[in-house]
Amino acid sequence: MKLTELRGVIPPIVTPFDENGVLDLQSLANVTHHLIDGGVDGIFCLGSTGECAALTDGERQKIVRTVAEVAAGRVPVLAGITETSTRRAVQLGKLVIEAGAQAVVVAPPFYHRNSQNELIHYFRDLASELPVPVIAYNVPVLTKTALEPATVEILAREGTILALKDSGGDGNILREFLLKTRDIPGFTVLTGLEFQVDTALQMGVHGCVPGVGNVAPREYVELYELARNGEYHKARELQERMIKLFDICYQGSDQISGSASALSGFKSALRWLGIIKTAKMAPPMGSLTAEEEDKVREVLVSLGFLRN
Amino acid sequence: MKLTELRGVIPPIVTPFDENGVLDLQSLANVTHHLIDGGVDGIFCLGSTGECAALTDGERQKIVRTVAEVAAGRVPVLAGITETSTRRAVQLGKLVIEAGAQAVVVAPPFYHRNSQNELIHYFRDLASELPVPVIAYNVPVLTKTALEPATVEILAREGTILALKDSGGDGNILREFLLKTRDIPGFTVLTGLEFQVDTALQMGVHGCVPGVGNVAPREYVELYELARNGEYHKARELQERMIKLFDICYQGSDQISGSASALSGFKSALRWLGIIKTAKMAPPMGSLTAEEEDKVREVLVSLGFLRN
Amino acid sequence: MKLTELRGVIPPIVTPFDENGVLDLQSLANVTHHLIDGGVDGIFCLGSTGECAALTDGERQKIVRTVAEVAAGRVPVLAGITETSTRRAVQLGKLVIEAGAQAVVVAPPFYHRNSQNELIHYFRDLASELPVPVIAYNVPVLTKTALEPATVEILAREGTILALKDSGGDGNILREFLLKTRDIPGFTVLTGLEFQVDTALQMGVHGCVPGVGNVAPREYVELYELARNGEYHKARELQERMIKLFDICYQGSDQISGSASALSGFKSALRWLGIIKTAKMAPPMGSLTAEEEDKVREVLVSLGFLRN
Amino acid sequence: MKLTELRGVIPPIVTPFDENGVLDLQSLANVTHHLIDGGVDGIFCLGSTGECAALTDGERQKIVRTVAEVAAGRVPVLAGITETSTRRAVQLGKLVIEAGAQAVVVAPPFYHRNSQNELIHYFRDLASELPVPVIAYNVPVLTKTALEPATVEILAREGTILALKDSGGDGNILREFLLKTRDIPGFTVLTGLEFQVDTALQMGVHGCVPGVGNVAPREYVELYELARNGEYHKARELQERMIKLFDICYQGSDQISGSASALSGFKSALRWLGIIKTAKMAPPMGSLTAEEEDKVREVLVSLGFLRN
Repeated sequence: MKLTELRGVIPPIVTPFDENGVLDLQSLANVTHHLIDGGVDGIFCLGSTGECAALTDGERQKIVRTVAEVAAGRVPVLAGITETSTRRAVQLGKLVIEAGAQAVVVAPPFYHRNSQNELIHYFRDLASELPVPVIAYNVPVLTKTALEPATVEILAREGTILALKDSGGDGNILREFLLKTRDIPGFTVLTGLEFQVDTALQMGVHGCVPGVGNVAPREYVELYELARNGEYHKARELQERMIKLFDICYQGSDQISGSASALSGFKSALRWLGIIKTAKMAPPMGSLTAEEEDKVREVLVSLGFLRN
Repeated sequence: MKLTELRGVIPPIVTPFDENGVLDLQSLANVTHHLIDGGVDGIFCLGSTGECAALTDGERQKIVRTVAEVAAGRVPVLAGITETSTRRAVQLGKLVIEAGAQAVVVAPPFYHRNSQNELIHYFRDLASELPVPVIAYNVPVLTKTALEPATVEILAREGTILALKDSGGDGNILREFLLKTRDIPGFTVLTGLEFQVDTALQMGVHGCVPGVGNVAPREYVELYELARNGEYHKARELQERMIKLFDICYQGSDQISGSASALSGFKSALRWLGIIKTAKMAPPMGSLTAEEEDKVREVLVSLGFLRN
Repeated sequence: MKLTELRGVIPPIVTPFDENGVLDLQSLANVTHHLIDGGVDGIFCLGSTGECAALTDGERQKIVRTVAEVAAGRVPVLAGITETSTRRAVQLGKLVIEAGAQAVVVAPPFYHRNSQNELIHYFRDLASELPVPVIAYNVPVLTKTALEPATVEILAREGTILALKDSGGDGNILREFLLKTRDIPGFTVLTGLEFQVDTALQMGVHGCVPGVGNVAPREYVELYELARNGEYHKARELQERMIKLFDICYQGSDQISGSASALSGFKSALRWLGIIKTAKMAPPMGSLTAEEEDKVREVLVSLGFLRN
Repeated sequence: MKLTELRGVIPPIVTPFDENGVLDLQSLANVTHHLIDGGVDGIFCLGSTGECAALTDGERQKIVRTVAEVAAGRVPVLAGITETSTRRAVQLGKLVIEAGAQAVVVAPPFYHRNSQNELIHYFRDLASELPVPVIAYNVPVLTKTALEPATVEILAREGTILALKDSGGDGNILREFLLKTRDIPGFTVLTGLEFQVDTALQMGVHGCVPGVGNVAPREYVELYELARNGEYHKARELQERMIKLFDICYQGSDQISGSASALSGFKSALRWLGIIKTAKMAPPMGSLTAEEEDKVREVLVSLGFLRN
C-alpha cells in the first residue's frame, strides 16, 4: 500500500549491537515491538539516531528487513538515505526498498558541498529512480548544506517530495517551511527537534521524529494527541518531562564534548528497560561505561520509568 | 617496498568520467602519466579533489588499480579513506590496498561527530588492521571534526601515523603541528593549501598536495625546489602564477556559491590540454557548461598554458 | 515607583532622525504615544532596533528623557546599556537613569570577549552601582559572547537581575532558561524573537520585545492576550500576520545582505502611517530609497495597515 | 610632517592601569620608551591589545597624548578608531588627532552589521572629515563584519586609505589583499598575526603589528630585518621563539576560555621586566592572579628574557 501522507510520531529507531559490535537483530525486533505497542505512527530506520552513516550496506539492509518484518504493515517503515552522491544514494535506495522500506528519508549529500540547484537535481533524480515516496531531511549541523525554504517549496509543489523532516533548529526557518507549503495537498512537515514538539505542533507541523521516543514512545504519542486537541498546557508539562528524560544522553564524559556517542544513552535506557542487550555504539563512537550507565538508570528511576 | 617517509609534491589526482558519467580509466591513466612526467613525488587517489566521497567502492578500487599500474613503482600511490566509521574504513582500506595503494590517507569520520579520544582510537584501529602506513588528513571544513595538534602529536609519537596532511587553513595551527612533531624521526607534514605552498615550506612543511597540480605538476615541483633552495622570491612569483591559474575553478555559476563542482575547472583544463575527455563531475555535482569551459580556456591561454 | 516585575509587550522603540540625520524628538514622542495608545506594557529605549550602539551619549540621554516625559509613569521606560566595559556601562547607566529610565537592559560587553565568570562580575558591578533593576540581554549574534543558562540562573537566584531578554534564537536554550528560573519569584523571561512570540508564550515566557511592535503595538498586545487565554489557534493566525508585516524590513537591497539597515523598514512604515518624518538611519547604516519605501507601502496596504 | 607610507614594526601598545584600575600614564610612558629604544617604526595606541573598546573617551585622549609626547616625532603615533557609527567615529577621531595621533586605524563598526557598500561610505566619510591618513583594520573575529578584498582595493585605489592592517587570519585572503593592491604607489599591508610575521613578509606584506612586540620589540625588529634581507631560515627561528614567548598569554584560567583577559599576560611580562606596575585589565576583563603571574615569569626566564 502506497504511503500518501506522513504525520504523527515516527521515532528514529536505534541500532542495537551485541558485546562484540555485531548487529543484534533480536534486540532490534524488540525495539520495533516496543514502538508499535507505544502507538507510534511509523518507524524511521537508518536515521542519525540509528547511526546511519556508520553502518555497512549489508547492515543497513538487515535493519530495514527486520523492522519491516516485525512491523508487518501495521505502521509504515521509512529508511534513511544519508549518502554522498546520486549514484551511491540510488544504489542504497534500491537496497532498502528491496528490504521493505515504504519511503526513503533523504538528506543532502554530506561531504562535498552542493548548491541548492544541485540539491534540486539530487532529489529529482532519486524520486525518478526509486518507486517509493521521498521525504527531504534538513539537518545542516550534520550535512553542512542546508535545504533552503525556496528549494523545499519547489520540490514539494512539483510532487518530488512527500514531506520534510526539519532538524535545522531555527524556528524562524521552520515557520517559513510551513508558510510556504501549507497549501500543498498532502505535503507535511515533521520536526526533528525533540525538545520543541509541543511548540512545533502549535506552529503547524504534522508530526515529529524524536530520538528519546525510542525510550518513551507512549509519551510522545500522548504529547502529539494533547497538542492536536489544543491542550497545550498539559502538552508542555509532558514535553518538559521528556526534556528531563533526555538527561540519559548527558551521562558520558565524551558525550559532553559533542561526540555523537551521546546516543549511547538511548541504548542504555533501553537496556535498563529490558528491551535490548547492550549500549554499544559503532566505533569509533564510544559507549557509556558501567558507571555512566548507572547514572542513566538514576534518571530513569527519578522520572518513574523504572522502579528503584 | 615500504614507504618510510613522505615529502615533496603529491597531487590529489582527479577522477575523469566520460560523457555518460562512467569512470574513464584511459583518461585517468593519461593524468597519471602527466603527473609522473611532471616530476611529482607521489600520487594521491581518492582525495577530496578526486571526489572520494561521491564514488562507489567499485569505482574506488578501479581508480587505485589503474593509477598503481601506470605508476608501476616509479612514485608511491596513496589512497584516501574518507569514511564514516571504523568498520567501513577498514573495509575500504583493504580494498584499496589490494588494488595497489602503498599508504592510506585517513580523514576523521565525517557524519557523526567524534571526540579527540574517539579519533585516537580510530587511527589506532586502522593502523593495526591495515598493512600500510597511515597518513592523517585534517580537513575540518569538510569533516566538521578537526584533528587537534595534541591528538596528532600522540599519534605521531607512538608511530600510528607516518605523516599529516593539513588542509585546516589556520596558519597558527599548522605552525603548532610543526613545532609539536619536528623532533619525531621520519614524521612529515604536508599542506593541502595550494595558495600558500611557498610560505608553508618556509614554515617547515615537507610537501604539498595541490589540486591545481593536476594541471601544472611541473610548476609545483619547481616551486618546491625553489623553496628548498631558499629562493623564496622566485618561489613567490611562481606561487602567485599558480594562484592565477586557479581561476580555472571560478568560472561556473554554481561554483561561486560554494559548490564542490568548482573542481570541474581542473578537469576542463585537463581536457583543453588534451589529457582527459570531459569535465564531467559525479552528480549531483554539476559540471561546467561549454561557455564556462571557454573561459577556462582563456585562463590557460592568458597564463601561457595553451596557445591561442 | 520601583519596577518589581516585567511582563507583557515591551517594544524596542525606534530612533527617528530628520532629513539631516539629527535626532527628531517630536517624532520620537509620537511613536511613544502610538505605543502607549496601542496598550503596550513598557517601552524599551536604546535597544538594537533603536540603533543603540550608533548613538552618542548625548543622543541617548535625550531619547530616554523624551520617552520618559511622554510616558509620564503610565508604562515603565527601560533603557539599553549596550557597552564595552564596566566603567563605560556604569557611566552610561547613570546618564540614562538620570534621564528617567526605570530599569536598564544590559547586554554583555561586545568587542573584547569575556568568560562567563567575567560576565557574572559585570552584572554584579552594574547592579551594585545603579539604583534601578537590571535586566540581562542575551543576543550573541551581536555581542558574540552568549549568556549561558547557568550564568543567568546564578544572577537571577541571587537577585542581581530582575529578568532576561533572550534573543539567542535557540529554542532549546530558551527552554533551559525557563526551566532553570521558573521557581524564582518575580523573575521573568522575555523573548526578542518576534516571529515566535506565540510559541514562546506557550513555552512559558512572560513577554516579548518585538521590533515590528513599533508599527503594530495593538496586534502584539492582542497576540499576548490570546496566548495568555490559551487561544493558540487565533494567536498563530495573528503571529503569521505579523511575520508577513515584517516584509517591510526586506525591501532594501543592502538589507538583504544582512545590513542592520533593514531596520529602516520599521521607520518607513511609521512614516507612511504619519507618525514619524523620515526612514533615515544613523550612518554608515543606509536608508531605504524612495522606490524601496514604496514597496514598504505596498506591504502595509496589502495587510490592511494602510488604505490604498 | 604628514605620514606618507607605513611599514616595519608597529606594536599595538598596552594600556597600563594602577592597582585601583586608574590609567597609569607613567607606566605608559615607560612602555613607549621601551618600544622606541627597541627600534620600532611606529606605535599603535588604542588597538585591541590596548583594550580600545573598554576605555572612556577621556582615557583614550590621555593615552594618545602621553605616547605622542614621549615619541616626540621620533616615530609616528597611530590611534585606533574602533567605533560603532560614523558620528561616533568622527567624534573620537577629532579627539585623538587633537591629542597627537598622526594617523587613525579604523575597524568596521562592530555592533550593528554593515554591508560592504556601507563600509565604503564609512571610510570615505572618515577620510573626508579627518585631516590625517586613514588605515583600514580588518578584524572580523572582533567586528563580525569583514573588509572584503574588493572593498579594500576600491578604498586604496581612490586614496581613501593609506594602508591595511589585516588580522583576518586567512592566508588566502591576505594574499588576495596583496595581489589586488601591489601596484598602488605608497599603499601598504601590515599583518596583525604575530605568529606568521616571517611568512607574511615573504608573501609581501610591508610590516606587522605584534602584541608580543610590547615585550620584545627588538626581536620583532630583527625578525623584520632578517626577512627583508631574505634570511628566512633565521627569521623562522626567531619567529618560533616569539611564538614560545606568547605562552605568557596562556597562563590564566579564564584566558583559556577565550576571554580577552589573555592580554593580561603582556602586562605581567612588562611588570616582571620592570617597565609597568601591574597586570590589571579594564573590568570586566579579569587579570592574572599572583600564582599565574609567577608562571609568566617562568616563561620569561626559560626564554632568557629574565634572569632566574
